[in-house]
Amino acid sequence: MKRIASRVEYEGSIATVRIDEFRYADGSTAKRQIVTHPGAVAVVAHDDEHVWLVRQPREAVGEEALLELPAGKLDVPGELPLDCARRELLEEIGKQAMQWRELKRFFTSPGFAEEEVIVYLATGLVGVEHEPDPEERIEIVPWPLAELDPAIEECADSKSLIGLLILRSLLR
Amino acid sequence: MKRIASRVEYEGSIATVRIDEFRYADGSTAKRQIVTHPGAVAVVAHDDEHVWLVRQPREAVGEEALLELPAGKLDVPGELPLDCARRELLEEIGKQAMQWRELKRFFTSPGFAEEEVIVYLATGLVGVEHEPDPEERIEIVPWPLAELDPAIEECADSKSLIGLLILRSLLR
Repeated sequence: MKRIASRVEYEGSIATVRIDEFRYADGSTAKRQIVTHPGAVAVVAHDDEHVWLVRQPREAVGEEALLELPAGKLDVPGELPLDCARRELLEEIGKQAMQWRELKRFFTSPGFAEEEVIVYLATGLVGVEHEPDPEERIEIVPWPLAELDPAIEECADSKSLIGLLILRSLLR
Repeated sequence: MKRIASRVEYEGSIATVRIDEFRYADGSTAKRQIVTHPGAVAVVAHDDEHVWLVRQPREAVGEEALLELPAGKLDVPGELPLDCARRELLEEIGKQAMQWRELKRFFTSPGFAEEEVIVYLATGLVGVEHEPDPEERIEIVPWPLAELDPAIEECADSKSLIGLLILRSLLR
């Protein structure tokens, strides 16, 4: 499969939409609508007692705040994904971590979007003075590590589910 | 939080982009770019020996075909999600299932997209005569149920990871 043409149809603040054309090994061609995205990181940060989650409004999908892993878009030019993950953990939870490990990379919706998320495991947590950004409307939720099943039940977004499902299998 | 304005910025074949404005409890307002999506279903279909996966090209994210659960968009007006899941299992794998159960609903990327995926568990599988759609370029992959770990390792999209991680925890 080869990309043989690409045209930007719409350029927005987060998502840009392209129409790309591909040629397959059998010679046939097809057009695909593709939503571009810079990618994102998410952090499974836990100590002996808690996994550190957040609750935040997600306007795209409804009126209730969602329970999620701390996370953020790769929207600082030149910033490495791991540095973005460190920054998000500090900004959203107010913690630094001594140990970092990549748990999984995945595409949120590869049928139409480029977005790739890298999920990290962060341990050896140390609290740090921080001023949460009031614009972000984020509530910190220290969730008991012994109660992962109800967290997985409540979580409703892909990165948080994947991170917590992997954490549960690691802890068993 | 209340939606106080909504404007379609771009209308495409799969994704439409809106700019919506929201007012929060504290009186402040914010605009959000939202990619609309009809939603999708995915199917964890297994018998005693195999979970039935597919490999298919995903032009948005690269040149290699991805290993995934059978799945599809809710793009037939009026079709119920479970009926869409039955249709996709038949069209992509050539099987019907006697038992269906909803495993999980999740948003692929609630920071900017509406897309919600419903993942079903399908068991009691029965093979059916079917003609695969050559346009779909889908390869059927009967994956040994005893080898779920390498499937989870290889899968790189949210619905397949969530479905297989939940299946692994059910089978343990």
